[in-house]
Amino acid sequence: MKIDLNADLGEGFGSYTMGDDAALIPILSSANLACGFHAGDPLIMRNTVRSTKVSGVDLGAHVGFDDVQGFGRNKIALPLEVLESLVIYQLGALAGFARTEGHKLTHMSFHGALGNQVASDHELADALLKIVAKFDSELIISSSSSVAMERAAQRHNLRIETTFLADRAYEASGLLVPRSKPNSVIKDEKQVLQRIDQLLNDGTVTCYDGEIVVMPARSILVHGDTDGAVNLAGKIRHYIEENGGVITPLSKLGI
Amino acid sequence: MKIDLNADLGEGFGSYTMGDDAALIPILSSANLACGFHAGDPLIMRNTVRSTKVSGVDLGAHVGFDDVQGFGRNKIALPLEVLESLVIYQLGALAGFARTEGHKLTHMSFHGALGNQVASDHELADALLKIVAKFDSELIISSSSSVAMERAAQRHNLRIETTFLADRAYEASGLLVPRSKPNSVIKDEKQVLQRIDQLLNDGTVTCYDGEIVVMPARSILVHGDTDGAVNLAGKIRHYIEENGGVITPLSKLGI
Amino acid sequence: MKIDLNADLGEGFGSYTMGDDAALIPILSSANLACGFHAGDPLIMRNTVRSTKVSGVDLGAHVGFDDVQGFGRNKIALPLEVLESLVIYQLGALAGFARTEGHKLTHMSFHGALGNQVASDHELADALLKIVAKFDSELIISSSSSVAMERAAQRHNLRIETTFLADRAYEASGLLVPRSKPNSVIKDEKQVLQRIDQLLNDGTVTCYDGEIVVMPARSILVHGDTDGAVNLAGKIRHYIEENGGVITPLSKLGI
Amino acid sequence: MKIDLNADLGEGFGSYTMGDDAALIPILSSANLACGFHAGDPLIMRNTVRSTKVSGVDLGAHVGFDDVQGFGRNKIALPLEVLESLVIYQLGALAGFARTEGHKLTHMSFHGALGNQVASDHELADALLKIVAKFDSELIISSSSSVAMERAAQRHNLRIETTFLADRAYEASGLLVPRSKPNSVIKDEKQVLQRIDQLLNDGTVTCYDGEIVVMPARSILVHGDTDGAVNLAGKIRHYIEENGGVITPLSKLGI
Repeated sequence: MKIDLNADLGEGFGSYTMGDDAALIPILSSANLACGFHAGDPLIMRNTVRSTKVSGVDLGAHVGFDDVQGFGRNKIALPLEVLESLVIYQLGALAGFARTEGHKLTHMSFHGALGNQVASDHELADALLKIVAKFDSELIISSSSSVAMERAAQRHNLRIETTFLADRAYEASGLLVPRSKPNSVIKDEKQVLQRIDQLLNDGTVTCYDGEIVVMPARSILVHGDTDGAVNLAGKIRHYIEENGGVITPLSKLGI
Repeated sequence: MKIDLNADLGEGFGSYTMGDDAALIPILSSANLACGFHAGDPLIMRNTVRSTKVSGVDLGAHVGFDDVQGFGRNKIALPLEVLESLVIYQLGALAGFARTEGHKLTHMSFHGALGNQVASDHELADALLKIVAKFDSELIISSSSSVAMERAAQRHNLRIETTFLADRAYEASGLLVPRSKPNSVIKDEKQVLQRIDQLLNDGTVTCYDGEIVVMPARSILVHGDTDGAVNLAGKIRHYIEENGGVITPLSKLGI
Repeated sequence: MKIDLNADLGEGFGSYTMGDDAALIPILSSANLACGFHAGDPLIMRNTVRSTKVSGVDLGAHVGFDDVQGFGRNKIALPLEVLESLVIYQLGALAGFARTEGHKLTHMSFHGALGNQVASDHELADALLKIVAKFDSELIISSSSSVAMERAAQRHNLRIETTFLADRAYEASGLLVPRSKPNSVIKDEKQVLQRIDQLLNDGTVTCYDGEIVVMPARSILVHGDTDGAVNLAGKIRHYIEENGGVITPLSKLGI
Repeated sequence: MKIDLNADLGEGFGSYTMGDDAALIPILSSANLACGFHAGDPLIMRNTVRSTKVSGVDLGAHVGFDDVQGFGRNKIALPLEVLESLVIYQLGALAGFARTEGHKLTHMSFHGALGNQVASDHELADALLKIVAKFDSELIISSSSSVAMERAAQRHNLRIETTFLADRAYEASGLLVPRSKPNSVIKDEKQVLQRIDQLLNDGTVTCYDGEIVVMPARSILVHGDTDGAVNLAGKIRHYIEENGGVITPLSKLGI
């Protein structure tokens, strides 16, 4: 059983750090890099592209609102053509570093408030994946479970991989419980490992309201910016491997 | 005689406009687009890429400091690795729009304070053109006359085209007289046309101090953001064509 | 009859201009200055404070979202404490220039998307005017007609002046028709002057849907950033004066 | 013997943290707050103003270039009138929070690359302190030792207090050794405490080149953003108090 282990990386900004990328990268198979809009800056992007290449980790673009101060978590009501344009701008910028560093952009995902929007808004998901496909029809879309995103990807012939957020609570619809709600982020390590166990064995997740729903993910997203994040990621990797899983980059999961 | 006529475009920002791109584009053969750092934003970039494609105008990246408020005209003392990274970021972002709009990035140039720096700093020119070559070894470097840039381009096997700024005064070294000096910008239309005449017939320019120096340019940069700019650009084009010149995009000037 | 004539000024950004402030200021009695968040920058603020002082024009702060690229017109969903803080930051910054230039901050208003939000959200209006009162209990609140703002001002003992936007369509509720709707901005000069006539003589406005509602304004906002704006402002001033009105700064309208 | 202990605070940005302000504030007598240009944002400023007030810590403005990404450490070549304006903007913004939180702005200092510039450029120091005096003639200037700053303060009747950077190497001129040089930042705790001992007992500092020069400081700056910073600050305070010093805010040091 092939399982991708990925995280959002390159989320520092100038002198500011966020997460311990250097320690995390060797544990991962794929990485989603901030592109200078909600986090990251050109030098951080370049260095992180380099590190992922060295470690054989798949390179993806993590695309968000242009709002470092708010870390892309505040919804900004933008006209569609502006949204389309900021997606391409970020994909292009990261692809530029892939070129100079000899790496390859394999996937993309949406971050924060923009991620929440595309996960629940069919029209928006459709429009943004349409332009992503125009940019590069081979990019894999990495997304938390979302019918809107799955349909849009299908319509535009893009491969989509559902990624499971082991430390985030789920609605029965498959959408993430917003961070503003209590217990939307699961901090107990045991509980996180238990949820991965359930995913791998049963292919399900127990939702916020207790309901058990199917979770067709073969990719797991770990967070790098919480206390003990690297340690937990290591345990998750170890757990998967001990149970016969093979940690595999998104682009090599096969169809 | 093939002559390229180019201008810096896409220099608006959100609701702010700078120059009349729509009127200027049909007059040009090449365009240098701001990439969101010293001017421009993702939507403006996309729309301007589209317009240049429609008009068969060559698409170039105009790369500058990250400083819209200062329009990239204030020198920022940045570490080399930061400078390299912001060049790639901007090239990549614009190349992204070229991909979605079906156009091609053919050239690049440096803007404002960064442009002044590379034109006179051999080491910096070398480092930045080295990484440009890594990004795309076929990009043409468009530059005002600069020994530093010519040598760097040669060293990294990049084609370089000297562009003549008809409305800017020159030092005998071939470098531009800084904007801060009086009469560094030539506003008299007759004088501008006379200088083009001299360039086309004698291949020279009369410098700030009266000296006449060789100007090996087959590309002319017109400004789009001054009063009567479009009108003057039209006259320049007309003048060139009347004198047997053929307005030709940078990428088609031949070697 | 005392009538205040005001406009939003200082809306340039670096090299970018917006409106002809120099021509407009002598026509006005009050000015609302952008504070570097949705428009304006420190130097523009300082110079505009100076010009208003020279012309004896009342100085107000025009407070908006931190989004020059979007000109403060895109709603950003921010936590209340962030909104409160950005209001105080902007008021304080402009008050700083009032101190160095020997002028006085007399009033404040909300701009764009933030203005639309406070005009219709009672809780938000209450919270923001509460902190404005803490900053300076003598500031006059200038607002388009809004029950939310009027009640909040009353609750926090702030004087409020309704300003009439002669070139914007109104809902029957007194709120402005959003700019996204057709004909929300009235461009016909005759119609604008007719509306001012109706305001001065009947104290009413004819709404978007034809209904006539009371408009208790003794302050008129003219726009400076449209074609012919200065000319129109001059005509409005002339019209008011011819009809016996006295153009009077907000702070001198009396109670 | 009264000694001020101060630190640069409020240097986070949105989700990014820098230093442990909450632990540091009770140890200090004065604080220098970032004003949203090189670090800090409106909410962080407000919360930090509140915390300093609660702890009876003097409130100062730490004024820098508009460059969060570079943390104000890259020199930006700006026209003088722009520099003057950004100083007033920042002072005003922080003074705004002092008003709403019932605290008082007692002092100001320059940060990073701007700090280096004013410390060595007599003309610039003169111009900027002139406008600071116009903003508030009672503000105390806090500065590392600098003849330029001392003379400018004297000329504009501003009180100036030299602050000693216990963990930064000094040139014989009294200026700081630039961060780019090796060993410009002293990380050894023992050495830092020894330097404070020397300051308190001999009123001198041993410079980078071994020379011993007079250091007329009765204020000590501790850094909050390095490992073990809070612990070291506590030791410094303890050491001073054990040796009969009284930790005293800048505004209460007396003349």
